[in-house]
Parts: sequence; C-alpha cells; structure tokens
Amino acid sequence: MDAISRLLKPRSVAVIGASADANKTAGRPVSYLRKHGFAGEIYPVNPRVDQIDGLRCYPDVASLPDVPEVGIVLLGAERAHLAVRDLAARGSAAAIVLASGYTETGEEGARRQKQLIEAAGSMRLLGPNTIGLVNLTDNIPLSASGALEMEHFPVGSIGVVSQSGGILGALLSRAAARGIGLSKLVSTSNEVDLELADFIDHLVDDEATKVIALYVEAVRNPEKFRAAALRAARAGKPVVAFKIGRSEAGAKAAVSHTGALAGADRMYDALFRQVGVIRAQTFTDLLDIPAALATGRVLRGKRVAILTSTGGAGTLVSDSLGVSGFETPAPDEDTAARLRALQKGDHAALDRNPIDVTLAGLQPDLLRGAINALLDSPSYDALTIIVGSSSLAMPELMVGAIKDCLPNSDKPVLAYVSPHAPELASLLNQEGVPAFTAPESCTIALDAMLRARSWKPPVADGAPAGVVDTSDFPSGSLDEAQAKELFARFGVPCARERIVTAAEEAERAARELGGRVVLKILSREITHKSDVGGVAVGLSADQVGARLTDMAAEVHAKAGVRPERFLVQEMVGGGTELILGMHRDPLGTAVLLGMGGVTAELFKDTTMRLLPAQGGLSREEALDLARELKTWPLLDGFRGRPKADVEALVSAIVAFSRMAAQMGERLVEAEINPVFVLPEGQGVRAADGVVVLGA
Amino acid sequence: MDAISRLLKPRSVAVIGASADANKTAGRPVSYLRKHGFAGEIYPVNPRVDQIDGLRCYPDVASLPDVPEVGIVLLGAERAHLAVRDLAARGSAAAIVLASGYTETGEEGARRQKQLIEAAGSMRLLGPNTIGLVNLTDNIPLSASGALEMEHFPVGSIGVVSQSGGILGALLSRAAARGIGLSKLVSTSNEVDLELADFIDHLVDDEATKVIALYVEAVRNPEKFRAAALRAARAGKPVVAFKIGRSEAGAKAAVSHTGALAGADRMYDALFRQVGVIRAQTFTDLLDIPAALATGRVLRGKRVAILTSTGGAGTLVSDSLGVSGFETPAPDEDTAARLRALQKGDHAALDRNPIDVTLAGLQPDLLRGAINALLDSPSYDALTIIVGSSSLAMPELMVGAIKDCLPNSDKPVLAYVSPHAPELASLLNQEGVPAFTAPESCTIALDAMLRARSWKPPVADGAPAGVVDTSDFPSGSLDEAQAKELFARFGVPCARERIVTAAEEAERAARELGGRVVLKILSREITHKSDVGGVAVGLSADQVGARLTDMAAEVHAKAGVRPERFLVQEMVGGGTELILGMHRDPLGTAVLLGMGGVTAELFKDTTMRLLPAQGGLSREEALDLARELKTWPLLDGFRGRPKADVEALVSAIVAFSRMAAQMGERLVEAEINPVFVLPEGQGVRAADGVVVLGA
Repeated sequence: MDAISRLLKPRSVAVIGASADANKTAGRPVSYLRKHGFAGEIYPVNPRVDQIDGLRCYPDVASLPDVPEVGIVLLGAERAHLAVRDLAARGSAAAIVLASGYTETGEEGARRQKQLIEAAGSMRLLGPNTIGLVNLTDNIPLSASGALEMEHFPVGSIGVVSQSGGILGALLSRAAARGIGLSKLVSTSNEVDLELADFIDHLVDDEATKVIALYVEAVRNPEKFRAAALRAARAGKPVVAFKIGRSEAGAKAAVSHTGALAGADRMYDALFRQVGVIRAQTFTDLLDIPAALATGRVLRGKRVAILTSTGGAGTLVSDSLGVSGFETPAPDEDTAARLRALQKGDHAALDRNPIDVTLAGLQPDLLRGAINALLDSPSYDALTIIVGSSSLAMPELMVGAIKDCLPNSDKPVLAYVSPHAPELASLLNQEGVPAFTAPESCTIALDAMLRARSWKPPVADGAPAGVVDTSDFPSGSLDEAQAKELFARFGVPCARERIVTAAEEAERAARELGGRVVLKILSREITHKSDVGGVAVGLSADQVGARLTDMAAEVHAKAGVRPERFLVQEMVGGGTELILGMHRDPLGTAVLLGMGGVTAELFKDTTMRLLPAQGGLSREEALDLARELKTWPLLDGFRGRPKADVEALVSAIVAFSRMAAQMGERLVEAEINPVFVLPEGQGVRAADGVVVLGA
Repeated sequence: MDAISRLLKPRSVAVIGASADANKTAGRPVSYLRKHGFAGEIYPVNPRVDQIDGLRCYPDVASLPDVPEVGIVLLGAERAHLAVRDLAARGSAAAIVLASGYTETGEEGARRQKQLIEAAGSMRLLGPNTIGLVNLTDNIPLSASGALEMEHFPVGSIGVVSQSGGILGALLSRAAARGIGLSKLVSTSNEVDLELADFIDHLVDDEATKVIALYVEAVRNPEKFRAAALRAARAGKPVVAFKIGRSEAGAKAAVSHTGALAGADRMYDALFRQVGVIRAQTFTDLLDIPAALATGRVLRGKRVAILTSTGGAGTLVSDSLGVSGFETPAPDEDTAARLRALQKGDHAALDRNPIDVTLAGLQPDLLRGAINALLDSPSYDALTIIVGSSSLAMPELMVGAIKDCLPNSDKPVLAYVSPHAPELASLLNQEGVPAFTAPESCTIALDAMLRARSWKPPVADGAPAGVVDTSDFPSGSLDEAQAKELFARFGVPCARERIVTAAEEAERAARELGGRVVLKILSREITHKSDVGGVAVGLSADQVGARLTDMAAEVHAKAGVRPERFLVQEMVGGGTELILGMHRDPLGTAVLLGMGGVTAELFKDTTMRLLPAQGGLSREEALDLARELKTWPLLDGFRGRPKADVEALVSAIVAFSRMAAQMGERLVEAEINPVFVLPEGQGVRAADGVVVLGA
C-alpha cells in the first residue's frame, strides 16, 4: 500500500494536541473518530492529560506503543513541525497539519512552512491549513470539520478534493442533507506536499469512486494535473471542477496584445476542456453534476420526456431545457397509445410533453406504467419526473414507482422537486435518482452528461516537426519584416514584401509585386505605426514613391524619428481577418485565435488551446480552435460568403504552435495581426506581426 | 371596499362541494381555513353531508343564512357554473373556481368557460383552474394547495401573483422553509376575469405589501399590465417577474426580417425594462430578489464588504461579486484600524477584503464591533456576512450580533450560509437579513437592488407630433422608392436618388447626384434584389448607362421578369450601418434597432422598445435604445473612430417610431436596412427599406 492509500485508510491514528473537551476544535478529531465508528487504534497525544473519553493519552509521539500510520497534528504553527518531525522519526506514512499561519500570512509564515517541509523528510504531508479528510467508504473521519457533528452521512461514489477546508465542510453537510453519497473527501489547502493531482490520481484507482469533484483555487502543478485528469478521463471517471478566481481574470493583464483579451481564468477553461474536465459554473453545480454522473446512466441524445402531475412545474423544466437546446417532443404514436391506455378522464394530457397525468394520475400502477412507457419510447433519451406538492402527503408513492422502473432502462432519470421537500429529494438521491430543486439544475446535469460522453482524448499528429534554426534572430523586439521572416520559417505563409529605403526603390518593388501595395515604415522602436502616420494602403506603383517621401516627413514630425527603412507589401484582400497569438502564464503556454475587425473585438471573440508538454497542436486541435470562434460561420460560408481556406488556416495555427513550443521561454511575445484567411484554395497570409525575443 | 379587497379579506366564505374528508382535495379548504385560524364565517355547502368538522353544512348556496362574501367552488367543470350562478344571485363579491377542463383542454372546455363567465355576471371570478389564494397578512387561506399542510407561515411584505397554481404551492412552501415572509399569494391561472394586473394594482395599495413578485406565463392584457406596473414603480414598490416561455421565442418566427432576430420573449424583456419590472432569470431568484428588496435597505454603489470566519466561502462570494462588476476593496485606513483594535493574534486578516476574523473572532463583542465598523465605513455600500460551519454549533451568536447592528445603518446587509443550515438561514431571513445558500444569489440580489434604484419613469417629449398624410400610398408591398418616400415623410433622412427607365436617363441622374452612384432595379415584386443581380455599387456616371443595360438582361435571365424601372442613388459611405425596424405581436408594437454587418448579425446585436399607448418613443428612449446595443462603442468613438451623429440617429428612431404609432395596423411591415449613421454633424441616411401596407 502506498502512502496515500495508508493516509486515507490507516489502521492507527495519532492525534497530537488532542483536547479532552469535545467542544473545542482540538477535541473534535478523537470525538469524530469514535462517533463515526473508526475501527483502528486511536492514540491521543497530550502531555497534560491522562485519558480522553476512556482512551489512554500519551505524553508524546515517542512514547506511543506502536507506529501510528497517520498523525493528525492539532498544534499551532509554532510547534506543529516538532510533532511532524517526531512522526517522521517513528516512520508514519503521513501527517495532517491543521494549523494556519504559514505562507498565507507572509514572510514569517513562509519560514515556518519551510521548517515544516524539512521536518517531514520523506513522510507525506497533507496541509498545512487543512481541515483534514474524510473517508466515507470506510467510516474514517480524519478531520476537525464541524460538519462531522452530523450523525450520518450517505456513502456513495463521488470523491471530492477541495483546496479549501471550509468548503469541505460545506460540501459534506450539503451532500448529507441532500442524500448525495460521497466516497472520499480531502482538503488539500496549502499543498506543501500532497496536492490536487495526487488525490485525483488516487481516486482513479479507488474502486468506491466513480466521479471526481474538485474545488479549485489554483492548479499549482499543471503538468501533473493534466496527467492525472487524462488518466481519470481514460478510466471513464468524469472529473467535475468548480474553480474560483474568475473575476481576477481581468486584473491579470497579459503581456501580449491579444493576451489582454484572455485572462488567466480562460486558460483554465482551455486546460479543463483539453483534459476532459467538466467545469461547474456555479458552486451548486459542483454537487448537482456529479450526482447525475454518478448514476452511470448514459445520455445518448437531447430528447427529454417530462412526466408531471402539476402543469406549472412541468412547463418550468421544459422551458429551461429548451433554452439550452434540449428537445421535448410529444410522445410518438405508440407511446401515446400506451399512455392513453393507462388513464381515463378528459383532463390528463398524455399526448403532449410535459406528459401531465394530473392529480388523478397519482396512482402506483399508473405511474409505473407511464414511466416504463417513456423509458421504452424510442422518442426519448432521458426522463425528468416532476414531484409536486401533492407528493408531500405520499412520498413513497412517487419514489416507489421510480425505484421499481429504474432497472428497466439505462436512460438517465432525473427528478425536479417543486415544493420544499428535502426528505423526498434525499430519498430520491439515495435511490440513484438525482433530485434537484432548481429547474435549471436538471438542464445543467443533462448537459454535463452529454459533455462527459462527447469528450475525446487528444491525438498527437504523426511525425514530429523538425527543429527550425532561429539562432540568427536578435533578442528584443523584431521589426515587422523580421517577425514575418520568423513566422515564415516555421511555415506560416506571409504577404509578399520588399524592404526599401528610397522612393525609386519603392516604385520598383511595387512593380515587381504587381497590383496595389501597402507602404509601411519598418522600425523596431515604433510598434503602433498607424498612430504616427506610418501606414498607407492601396497605392499604385506610380504613387508609392511620393507617398514614401511624405510619410518620412510626417513620421518625423509625429514621432521625432526619421524612418530609414520601409516595407512595400502586396495588398491582401477578399479574406477574413484573424489574430493568431500566444499567451503564457503559470498554467502554461497557449495559442490564441481571435476574430479580427473592430466588431469582433467588441465581442472579444477569441479562443485558446494550451500546448501539450511536447510539441505543438495537432491539426484536429487547431481545427477545433477555429470552430470554437463565435464567428466561425464567417469562415464557413455564412450567408453565401465563399468558404475560407480552413485547411490553410489549420496549417498556419499548427505552424505557429510549433514555433511557440520549440522556442519556449525565448519567445516572450508573438502575434500575427492580422492574418488573412482567403477563399478555399487560396491559402492564408500573415500581413503584420509582433515578436519579442528574450536574451 | 372593492370586490378584490373583499375577495382577499372576506368576512364569510362559502365552500361549495366541500368534502368531510380532509385528506381529499375537496376537504382541504375548510380544513385549512380552520387550521390557520380564519376568524370569519365558514359555510360548507354539500347536499350529502350535514356537518363538516363541527360546522353546519348547507345543501346549496340558496339556503345559506347570510350572503357569503366569497365562494370557493370545488365542483367539477361540468357543474361549477351552477354554483357560480347561485353565488352571483346571492350577491357575493367573488367566486374562486378550482376546476380544470376549460379552454386549456380544447373546444368543449372553451364552451364551458364561456358558460362560466355568463354565470358570474357582474360578480368577480378568480380562475378557473386556480388553486386559489392565501392572505397571509390576515391568516386567510382560500386555497386547496397541499402546501397549506404546514403549520406556520412567516408573514411578511412580499405579495405574490402566480399564473400557475402548482407554482403557488412551490413558492409558499419554499418561502416558509426559508423564513421569507409573504403578504398575499394569488394564483390567477385561466384569468377569465381577474388577472395579473388586477392584483398588481391591488397590491400597490396594500399596506402590508412592499414588494410584488410575479410568476408569468403570458401577459394577456399588456396595456393594463403596463399601467399597473408603472403605478407600482411610482409608488416605490418594486415588481420582480419570472417569466417562462423563453425557449419558444425562437419558434415564433416574426413577420419581418429583423423581427426574426427578436422573438416574443425579447418583447417581454423590453416591456419589463420599460415599466421598471425586474426580470428574475431563474425560478430561485423569484424569492431571492424580493427577499432582498423587502428589507427596504438602499444600495448606493457597488462596493461590498465581506465579513467571514472562513476563508474559502469568503473568496467564493467575492469571486461571484467580481464577475458581475461589484467591487470588494480593502478597508480604508480608519476602518482597518478599528478592526485591528478589536482583535489580537497574527492570523486574522483585517486589512483585506474578505475581512477574515477566523474562528478565534467568533465572539459577540468582536462580531458586533466588526459589523459596525464595516457599516460605518465610507468605503462600503453593502455588507455580506459569511456564515460558516462553526456557526452550526452556536447559531444565536452570529444572528444576535447582526440583529444588534442592523438599526445602525440603512446599507444592505446580506448573509451567505456556507454549510447546510436551514434553521440558521430562516432565523436570519426573519430578522430581515436575506440569507442565501448560493454565492451567486448574493450577487443577483445586490444587482437587483441597484437596478430597482436606477429605474426612471418614462418621460414623454413635449409637443405631440403632427399627423402625416399617408393616404396616397397603395396597399401591399411598396417599392424601394415608395418605402423611402414614406420614411422621409415622417422625417427620416434618406439617400438622394432618381427613378430612371433608360440608360441615358441614368447617366443624367448620376451627373446630377454627383460622385459615384448605386444602381438598383425598382420593383414591388422582387425584394431580394442582390440575388438576381439587381444591385451594382460604386458606378461613375460614365459607367451607369451600360451597367443598366446589362443589369436588365441579367435580371430578366434570373428572375424571368424584365425590370422596367431603376433607382440611381448617391453612394453613402464612411458611416456605421444599422437596421431600424419594427416588430408587432400580442404584446404590442416595438421599434427594433440592430447593428448591421455580417459580424454583428452573428451576435444578434439588436435591442427593442415597445411603443407607448399613444405616440412614438421619446428622444431619451431612442437614445437608450442605441446605447443598449453591444456595439454601441462603434457609434461612440471606439478606438479612435470618429463619433457618429447620434443626435441624428435619435431623431430618425423617433421619426420611425411615430410612423409606426400613427399608422398602427395598416403598417404590416417596415424596415430600413441599412441606415447609415455618418460622423457627427453629417446626419443619417436610409439607404434601402421594405414596407408592406395593409388594405
């Protein structure tokens, strides 16, 4: 057994700093271990007490009769490291340190944290600043959370890892009240050693766990997290994450121009999407979605039957489903006939959806018949059952009927509980029917079930790209021509252009390029060329010379610098303008694709993909990236427009991503803005760009 | 006392079709009246029973000893009208009809509904298909809702009107469980007589009601609804509405081209916004928002202090607030000093926000001190207090501290309850502190408080517009020139143009107009001119003649019709393209403004405003309309663009709205697409348009 397995299921636990007063925080762990029936040895350690609740209390770790597998350290930050050192010396598998007052409080705390790590040596450490963990599968609470005051917790198959201790308590008590069964619950907090990814990894192998729920404040080790999440996805254990820090996104202004459109929080969106983690949008979803996924039922499509005895609530659920693109078709003819055969009377609506059996239909046989008919129907992929106020008086009626029918189908069956009826909802959850009190939750749960099924693992492209020599580029900001030379070397097609210094040279260049041209100053210092009059478009070869002379004067007047070099570039037109850039932050390096043009900019229409550990994006990922743009239809023949050369765009994205991957930290900033995507067969052209290289 | 007041507060109630079995639906009303302590006379009517629960039972309405002020009719749809007729004959103020089986079930039901209306005569009618009403202020339940099984309901100041009976029960039981006090609760359902607006109107005058909550399926009488909602707004009683039918919006394709972008549900958005009704986005919000508004506290800005003893939940609330644009600044120096003076110890974070007193800070004096300091602070407009798991063991501590401090300030104070703790949340709600179990609910409630304050009643512009003579326009589709002539007659500036029939004439027209021109076929039959090659742009006077000859041939080939007339129009450029149209549906007539161009179209960037009962939009409303466009910055100098002539746009919108108002039903369809808004001082130009007139 590895250390994490022993931490979660120890045969013996030492509680260092245990108090004999069960009402004090330090009295809770021993009290909870006994209350919830821990079967192993409990060793309270406290030099000032002889006994705690009939258990012998030891003066220190050294005097314990046996090596405790796990130590719960309740001492303050000033002394916790001493207990940790003693536990390590005895050979414990792991210590749980509850004290706060470490890095989260400043320099002195950081020093203490270092001391703590040193004291642990090779022993594993959970915390500090953690509330501990609860192994519900085996009745082992190693925690001081006040939520453990409750008498009973429904055991189930949702494993939870939280980076906050307080949130662990909230999830534990909320799940218990709703009858949602959990398997393991771990609060990792400061993560000096054991972290999110370690427990994801463990839960993938944990037989009792079918779904993993995460409360995330920050992923400290993205590579480890990706590996663990991918392992979970491949093992068919969905991971659902709620992450805070969404609103700091704006504040964390990114380095590059387009990066500003994509805060750090969007990097998490990209990360989660890429490794198959379903992102919960609200805290409530963090229990609702796992509850639905834990049923193991399979949603194969978007057609939902709604069975109700009360019209209003049925319409409410139907409306919410419709808003999110689910369908609620009327029963097919056979199903409608089966339903009609069940019930007489003129007010029941059995050939519409919601299927309303009315109050008169609340009879066991009728309900069973209706549920079976809807589960059998080829018209439906899922069934949502409405529990109305009338069920308050006869809870067993609806629960019993559903329970009897569940084994007859593997389609998802959900319940919406319209009145306040917590006991009824709890009963349903315990029977494996996710029961929700918000109509929107039904929709969110079904949507997550669809997404869990649709995720496909990333497939790397065949041959790795060759290494491109970039040693000849200088450090610092490249000028526009150099930037495009770099893009081109990795395979991004660029607009044709010539560097010129004088009027006659410009005319000659324009004649060589043919057609109208663009004239731009070429400078490593001036990045906003337009602002100083340094760009002119649509010039003929006859005009370009004179325009160069005027431009030189204007730029000199505005910027105080006389431009020495100019770029004569072919006019690229008739395509769709995009921005292709990168964003780098603690989570990794991402390639960013954005729609160009001022309107799209207002809508911040950008998408991003994190680079894998090795190499660039695959063609499939690059295509997905483009397809995720809200304005993707502009590339796809919207309203009779010509289809854009998406193949060429995909190649350009892959090429750009390989540049970012190969150059790594040296590439401080890189952005092509704009890149024109021409009609099918005509390729793409990078028309302008910015590159900053490190030393 | 008017009939509605007597319906809500009768001195005597007849229950027709009452059952002696309290477990049957027909047994409930009498049982609930007695259980909840109704002080007036109860007259059960049932020819087969002598007594019900000790009350004398009468064989029919005619034999009642006195005129019942209200009759609750529990008979089926086949016989309900007979009881209604008897009640009307006795002179009752109103009848409540619970039976279903009316218009909602088809033709036979519609016939019954007509019969019912005739039977009532001048007596008021609630229902049919209603579950009745509950007057909580005066302990009068006139309802069969199973939710009334509960022993006690917190009485408060939220009046609820629901168009669904089942939803009434859901709201009643949910509010009761959460300690949210209601005043009146009415289910209107089929609304053959009394409807939504009648009860809004009544609640405006009801002293016990401070906030009005609506569950809306469809507003049957928009004018009455507008008047009632405006009365409520002017009386300072916020109205909050949850409306279903959002997803049918797409299905109800609108008549006109731009109407297709704006389904009926968006008309409700416009209606609610115009009359100051706050739209609840989820069913849960329908209790959360009124609970916050019912406190009567005033939110003056967006700066929120978060007081917590548990870090995780504080961050959760802070994050949600940030996402919606609220600020959570750190305490100012004075406030931080006051907080620090309260608490010693190195782990409490008192100069940040969330202000974390930690577990150690959970002491009465400290909490009171901290709450007062934050309420006094000039840095905050509101206070959100986090209730953590530790409060489970000592509920009175936090509630007591908050209660003591509330009178010291009129700033909003909310609570977020992190663990499952319904009793605690209920206590807080009853003390006037809205307590939420979803972090997002705190944000939604505060946002609604801001909106409730910011609404301003519509102000009509000074002089009414003169009547424009339009009698010379034919019925049916107008051609483009006629359409623009109509727009121009109401004051919308149009692009200059000439109607021509031959090449030489076209050249002459182009010379007169000057500059480049647009050539278009002019036809009442062909509406999609571009599709048949009937549009050419950027032509010089020299080119336009030849182009006309070619165009005639191409259109003939493609459309099978030889165009006889053409339009030569000045080229309008350098402006921003908008679409200005109208949409008419059962809710009224709306003016619709949309951003033109293919990208904006993808984002469906349109806004709308309903016309008032009389006349067009005011200049202020027209400006608001433009400002609501997501792409408004394009008109407002975004990224160094020239500012658009917004004054001229406002005039054009007002002119268009007056056309729609004056012409009424005769104007079947009208749309200007595009209208160019030129830079400041240069006006707007309608460049193309469609009009369909009725007979």
